Order: sequence, then C-alpha cells, then structure tokens
Amino acid sequence: EDVQNIADQRKIAIDKVGIKDIKHPVKVSDRTTGEQHTIANFNMYVNLPHQFKGTHMSRFVEILNQHEREITVKSFREMLGQMTERLDAESGYIEMNFPYFVNKEAPVSKVKSLMDYDVTFIGEITGTKTMMTVKVVVPVTSLCPCSKNISDYGAHNQRSHVTLTVRVDSFVWIEDLIDLVEKEASCEIFGLLKRPDEKFVTERAYDNPKFVEDMVRDIAARLNDDSRITAYTVESENFESIHNHSAYALITKGFD
Amino acid sequence: EDVQNIADQRKIAIDKVGIKDIKHPVKVSDRTTGEQHTIANFNMYVNLPHQFKGTHMSRFVEILNQHEREITVKSFREMLGQMTERLDAESGYIEMNFPYFVNKEAPVSKVKSLMDYDVTFIGEITGTKTMMTVKVVVPVTSLCPCSKNISDYGAHNQRSHVTLTVRVDSFVWIEDLIDLVEKEASCEIFGLLKRPDEKFVTERAYDNPKFVEDMVRDIAARLNDDSRITAYTVESENFESIHNHSAYALITKGFD
Amino acid sequence: EDVQNIADQRKIAIDKVGIKDIKHPVKVSDRTTGEQHTIANFNMYVNLPHQFKGTHMSRFVEILNQHEREITVKSFREMLGQMTERLDAESGYIEMNFPYFVNKEAPVSKVKSLMDYDVTFIGEITGTKTMMTVKVVVPVTSLCPCSKNISDYGAHNQRSHVTLTVRVDSFVWIEDLIDLVEKEASCEIFGLLKRPDEKFVTERAYDNPKFVEDMVRDIAARLNDDSRITAYTVESENFESIHNHSAYALITKGFD
Amino acid sequence: EDVQNIADQRKIAIDKVGIKDIKHPVKVSDRTTGEQHTIANFNMYVNLPHQFKGTHMSRFVEILNQHEREITVKSFREMLGQMTERLDAESGYIEMNFPYFVNKEAPVSKVKSLMDYDVTFIGEITGTKTMMTVKVVVPVTSLCPCSKNISDYGAHNQRSHVTLTVRVDSFVWIEDLIDLVEKEASCEIFGLLKRPDEKFVTERAYDNPKFVEDMVRDIAARLNDDSRITAYTVESENFESIHNHSAYALITKGFD
Repeated sequence: EDVQNIADQRKIAIDKVGIKDIKHPVKVSDRTTGEQHTIANFNMYVNLPHQFKGTHMSRFVEILNQHEREITVKSFREMLGQMTERLDAESGYIEMNFPYFVNKEAPVSKVKSLMDYDVTFIGEITGTKTMMTVKVVVPVTSLCPCSKNISDYGAHNQRSHVTLTVRVDSFVWIEDLIDLVEKEASCEIFGLLKRPDEKFVTERAYDNPKFVEDMVRDIAARLNDDSRITAYTVESENFESIHNHSAYALITKGFD
Repeated sequence: EDVQNIADQRKIAIDKVGIKDIKHPVKVSDRTTGEQHTIANFNMYVNLPHQFKGTHMSRFVEILNQHEREITVKSFREMLGQMTERLDAESGYIEMNFPYFVNKEAPVSKVKSLMDYDVTFIGEITGTKTMMTVKVVVPVTSLCPCSKNISDYGAHNQRSHVTLTVRVDSFVWIEDLIDLVEKEASCEIFGLLKRPDEKFVTERAYDNPKFVEDMVRDIAARLNDDSRITAYTVESENFESIHNHSAYALITKGFD
Repeated sequence: EDVQNIADQRKIAIDKVGIKDIKHPVKVSDRTTGEQHTIANFNMYVNLPHQFKGTHMSRFVEILNQHEREITVKSFREMLGQMTERLDAESGYIEMNFPYFVNKEAPVSKVKSLMDYDVTFIGEITGTKTMMTVKVVVPVTSLCPCSKNISDYGAHNQRSHVTLTVRVDSFVWIEDLIDLVEKEASCEIFGLLKRPDEKFVTERAYDNPKFVEDMVRDIAARLNDDSRITAYTVESENFESIHNHSAYALITKGFD
Repeated sequence: EDVQNIADQRKIAIDKVGIKDIKHPVKVSDRTTGEQHTIANFNMYVNLPHQFKGTHMSRFVEILNQHEREITVKSFREMLGQMTERLDAESGYIEMNFPYFVNKEAPVSKVKSLMDYDVTFIGEITGTKTMMTVKVVVPVTSLCPCSKNISDYGAHNQRSHVTLTVRVDSFVWIEDLIDLVEKEASCEIFGLLKRPDEKFVTERAYDNPKFVEDMVRDIAARLNDDSRITAYTVESENFESIHNHSAYALITKGFD
C-alpha cells in the first residue's frame, strides 16, 4: 500500500505541498500574433489536511504533461481546477514564469525587433473562489532629476526594472500592462535602435527625468484609474549608474 | 534647493523607498565564539508620505557606513531606529542577509569543520512598534520513505533546503534555530566526514526516512512548543535525486 | 558621420566585441519530432582590427531579428557567416544557450514526460575555418560506492550535473549526447515516475554506484570511441547529499 | 580497505578532481588597513593519475579547515602546495572568490564609504611551476560617445562591469588593479555621494565618453606598460540603459 495514504497522527495541516521548479514548453496568448511559444517554469501546490501523511507528487507532473505544449491562459485555469480536484484538495496554487516577447517598433526608423519581458501567472483556488494574479517585469530607462538639475550638462541614467503585480477580475493583455509601465518611464527601451532612434531616446529621457519615487507614483496613478485591476503592487529598482547598489520604491494597494 | 523637497501634488504615499542590494562587512553574535565576521547584503527602506517628492538616498548609505564593520544585532536595532528618525519616516524596514558559519563536530570521529548557513535578519518599525524576523536556510539530507518501502535495497536521498522564518519576541540564537531544524531532518550534513562518520550518516538517514511533508510537520510541532516564537513559516525544498525538479512543502502560523 | 568609423590611433586590436545576453525565440532540430520551439540567450562577437574605433552594435541585433523565430542549426551557421561578413570581420563567434526538452519514457510503466536539458551551441569562424562546439548539461543520479561499501544498509546518492562539451565535425543529435551520458550514470532521471518506476530507479542506482571520478572516466571512454567527436571536455558536479558542497571531476582531450 | 585506493584499469587520467563551491571565512591583505575579513567560495582540485580509482575528498576539506579564519595570500600559496603534496598529485588548482571592500573618498565632499568588488585568486601548480592569477570585477560608469555626439543634450550612460584577469610574477595589490581600471572609465562609482559629488560625477562622465571598445583598449594600453603583469584579459560588459542586453568587448594577451 501507499505510504502516502497512511493516517497521520500529528494533527498538523500543510498549507502548500507539491512540486517546484519544473520546466515545460507553453503557448501564451499574444495580442498581435494570436499566440507565441515560450518556456515556463512551474510551481504547483495544494493544501494537505492534517489526517493525510502525504500528497501524490506524480499527479502534479501528470497534469502538467497532459497539456503538453499547449498551455494557454484558459488551460492554465483548467489545470488549476484539475489539480485541486485530482489531489482531493481544498486549495490549489499554480505559478508559471516565462519570458514573453513583444515585437517593438523603434521610435523614428520604425525598424522592428523583439524585446523580452519576464512574466508570471499565479492562479489560486481557495474553496470555491479563484484568483488570478499577473506579474510583469518591464525594463526601462530612468534619468535622475536631481543629477540633471544640479549639473551643467548631462544627467546619470540607467536601466531600471519596474515590476508590476496585478490582481485582475477581467481579461488584461500582457501588452496592456507593459504599455502602461513604458509610458511612465523616462524612456522605454528597445532591442534595435538606429542612429536617429538613439538620438530620440537620449533626448526623450533627458526631457523626462524621474526619480524612482516618480516612476512608482505615476504608474500607481494610472492603475488607480483602471477598473479591471482590483489590487496591485508596483516596484521600481534602478540599477544606479553612479553607485554599486539600487534605488528602490514600492506602492501597494488592495492586497489585504 | 533640493529637488527631493519639492511638495508633491499626486496625493500618493509610497510604502517603501530606499536602497537595495548594498554589501557591507558586519559582525554577528555567535553562541560559541562571541562573534563572527561576515559580509551582509542590505535592503533599507522607509515610507514616504504623499506630500514629499523624494527621500534622501544618501542618508541610508551614511547610516550604514557610520557603523562600519561593527554591525551587531544591537546596532541593527539602533540603525533601524536611526534610519526611521533621520528620514522623518513613520515606518522603517531593514533586511540584512549574510552567510553564517558554525563549527560542527562530525558524529563519530569528532573532527571539526565549518558549515555555512544563509541567514536574514528583518527589522520593521511601524509607528511605535518594532518587529524582528529571523530567517535561516538549513541544508540537510532527506531520504524518501516511499522509495525505501517499495525497494528491495537502497532509497533515494538528496540535499534539501529547510527555510525557517520566525518572528521572535525574545532573544534566540541562530544556532538554536539551526539545531531545531537539523534534529528533525533524515540526517544533518557536515563539511568534513571521515569514513566512520560517512557510515554513520548513511545509516542514520536510512533509519530515519522523511517525506517533505514529514519534515515541515515535525519542525512545526517543535516550533509550536517554543514560547519565544510568536509566528513562523517553515518550508522544505528537496532537490530530488531522481527528478530534475524539487518536492516542496510549507506550513505557516501566526503571520496575519 | 559615425563616431564608430573614426580611425583609431591606439594600435590595439580587439579580440571580441559585440552584444551579450540577448534573448530570442528559436526552433531547434529534434531527433523525434523534427523540431521544437524554445527560447535562447545569445552572445554574438566579432574581432575589431586596431585601425577602427568601434563596431556597429545595431547590426548584430538586425542579424538576429532577420531570422526571427526560425533559427535552426542551419541558420545558426548562416548567421555566423553573415555576421562576420556584414561587420567586415576576420573572426566571428556566436553562443546560443537554450533549454531543450526530451519526451522520456519511464523505465517500467512507460509513462511519458518531458525532461529539460541545458544546451549551448558555440560557432566560431577564424579566417576560413569554422568550428562548431556543443555543450549539454545532463542531470543524473550518482550513488557513492564508498558509502555503499562501508554501510550496513543504504548509500548516499544525489542529483549530479554532467556537462559534456564536444567539438564535432559531422552531425550529432543533442539526444545522442544525452543518451551517452545517461547510460554511464548510476541512474538516469525522469520528470514522471510511477511506483514501480521509483522502485526500479532506486535499485538501479544502488546496483550501479559511481564516484564522480568513475562518471567522467566512463563517459570519456565512450567519447574516445566516437569518431564524430574531435575534442571533448566532460565534467561532473555531484551536489552531495551529505555535504553543503559539491564533488567535481573533469577530463579534457583534444582542445589545444 | 578504501574503495578509493583500488587499482583502476580504465587507463584514463583525470585532469581535475576535488571539491567545488565550499564557503569559508578568510582574511585578505588590504593596502590601507593591513587586512580585512571576508567570506570566500573555494574550488580545490588536483589531477589523478590513471592507475588510481579515486581521490580523498575529505583531505581537501581538512586542508581548508586547518587554516580556519586566517587564510591570506601567503597561506593561499601554502595551501596550494600542501594540497598537491598531501594528495600525492602532480598538479593542483585552487580558486578562491570573495567580495573585497575599499573605503573610497567621494570626489568633492570627501565623505567616505565602502565599495565592494568581486575578486578571485587562482593558484595553479604544474610539476614544479606555480602560477598566480588574479581576477577583479570593477563596476564603473560608461557614457556612450555616439549618443552624446548625435543628441542635442544628454547621453545614455549605465553601470558597466570591467573584469580584469591578470597573471602576475610579483606582488600586486588588489587596489592597484582597481585603480588602474577606474582611471580609464567614463567615471568611477561610489557608495556615498553628496550633492556636489553627484554634480561632479555626472559632468565627469559626460566629459569623458567611452565606447565599450575604448574602455578595454585604454585599460590594455596601461597593462602593456606594467612590468609586473605577464598576461592579461580585460573585458567590459555595459548593461545598456537603452537596451535589454549588454555591449561587450574583450582583449587578451599573453595567455597561450
């Protein structure tokens, strides 16, 4: 008989148990092309009531492999339900982290190139309630207002990572979240820039200086106006070009 | 005048703002030797009320450098207070992550060698309340009860990381937390083992099989009995020797 | 005019210059299914003779984006030639690192599941000579012969990473290299194992103990017999289940 | 009897065998303060002739723990000799990687703060010959000459990592290598900068634009003039503020 099925006497329930860091190819819905192929890293957990000794680890992998290379947002929700049901659990949790590509147009030359963004879908079932959270890391340029203000010429600028985590109750494209962040940066960034583009982004950033505090506030202001978003956290980490550490800011709203 | 001091009109307060990922040498209290030198990575944040445009980033670094190479748990608490005060903030947060060494004795030969553990101190001030959280990652051996049970000989085993995060209201040695975890593993691990030690740990693990679920439950049971600990999360990640992914379990109690 | 095209007076040639850490979707040839979609990380460099001030960074990105989501081994070689030519260079270097999936069958139940392997293609042009190097990281189980020998029961075992780097002068499937390594491990590993499979792999590893030294020697012996391989390095890193460090061994042959 | 000592029939010698990724506290010589405490990560290998089945892994850890918290450049050389001798090897290799701190003075205000650098010592014995290699990663600011040239105002700049690897035949301070790199960057970076310092570094970088190619060439020119250095590799990776990838260049000389 299964060791896992032995009755457990310790009277201690487990909040999350399952598999972590398993890679799988997936397809993700793409606003422009319909869908795109990518590779995801999965964490899949359920709760375990106190009376059971162990969960069935192999079932998590079976569920993942059933859908093979066709995982979409729809099948992601299905997997979440299936997993919770097949493991006789009351709560379930799936996290799926993947690089996502957008074919961006350079601002002047209009040449196109792919930019990658780090995206995570988190699905949670608790009893009859399902919650979806989307997290996107958007790399941008930030230019320091203080440095611009006090210097006779130039201003330090750097790559920053803006991490936007949103709870949604209706459909939101990944690209919608990316656009929202990029519009509020000193300047958005690109894979490929020709000379007139490089002039454009240099001057655009200089015309549009933002502290790490400005970045998270301006993004928060836009999120406050978006009715699809019920809770959010916005973080910015600026990899300072004049220091060996980062400047960081965070605003959170609606997560209890 | 300082750009940072300009009045801000956006009416959006910032939950955390400051510096991230700055390294600094520190001294940490050691149960055996009094103290040990190590290197820490710091994150230091305060809140920023809606009416201020920016915080003063250089003050965070000044506070860190005042204490130079002498940061202890005591000065960690002082730094937290100082930072919150000097930045006119209502809340403050410092996270300090460092490798910590314990000089362990092998089980049979009694030869000594250092083992490193990844430790994090988190201090938070909210208004007049101060909270201290300690997190320790303890690497151990786990041996699978199911594999032992169904096989004629042998059993798969592997390195696991047990992460213990505790909120404390009285003093707890880092070594106390490490001991607590190591006693509940299939076997603890060591830097240096002679042949009789290797025989000992091999047989000890085989005699003491534990699922990832058993590990977190047995540690939770001991934490439930420890009055110094007001809240905890215990996680175990087993880097399975028969898979390319981890088995994972988590129990949490007392964090709201 | 282009700053890059100014004549340089320093008389110092540059060995490699280009772009690093750029992600791009690719298609890779698959022995079973024809091809698979994955995501690669690229480094692309050329040499720069002493008389030129700078290379043209945007051309590297253009070359990468021309092939968009259709990069194969064939187009990888084409890209290498194109890059070297378009940048007027004498030597060129492209490194492409990606996760690669194999749909493996469990040893007893025959259930199928995907396993991921970390693969790198390195292409180098020097003058008229082109060299192709393939690197595969194969995760396996290793079981310690000494631990088995001295213990009354059990034996410590763990996940190991075998890294095989080969220079080839005729076509070799990624799967051929993976198979070669997996046959020489204490046991190969799988995404999904049912109970009879778990019994099988536990006993198979116990019946087949190997030191880190045995692993690299047994793989080297097979590589010595493979006429397609003109040079190799084989490394094994065992993430010891009884220590917090790795055991490591390396054999190299034919790289000058 | 030791399984390791059994005669091996495979006729395959092993180039490197030993332990990898073991952490240990160390003391390192410091040009200003005499010495500093830090934490190092060690890789320690020897060769293994074809007739021996295995090396003695525990001896590596013993050698490391003998010197406990007092490892210096001197004891590093001693350890290398001891290890090679105690393991009856013809060749030995030790790699020791650690964060190193320099107390830097801000350019105008002269306030002091620590900056961390990633340093590696590599010692190799082959027969009777000993070679020492030192590697330092120096974070600096780079400012793009093209962006400055084509833009009406501003210029993109970013944090860059310059990695200098040198083979030395007489003593060189870590600080000497850091100084050499920092003088050739668009601007050096600091932990703590007051407002007049921030103005200084912003303008200094703008006055001193450098391509990734310029950075490695200007450093190579200085290395060519330094008689203590018998071989070098200099690399620069610029974490571009306008792209999500890096610009990279490498010059190497004297390593065969």
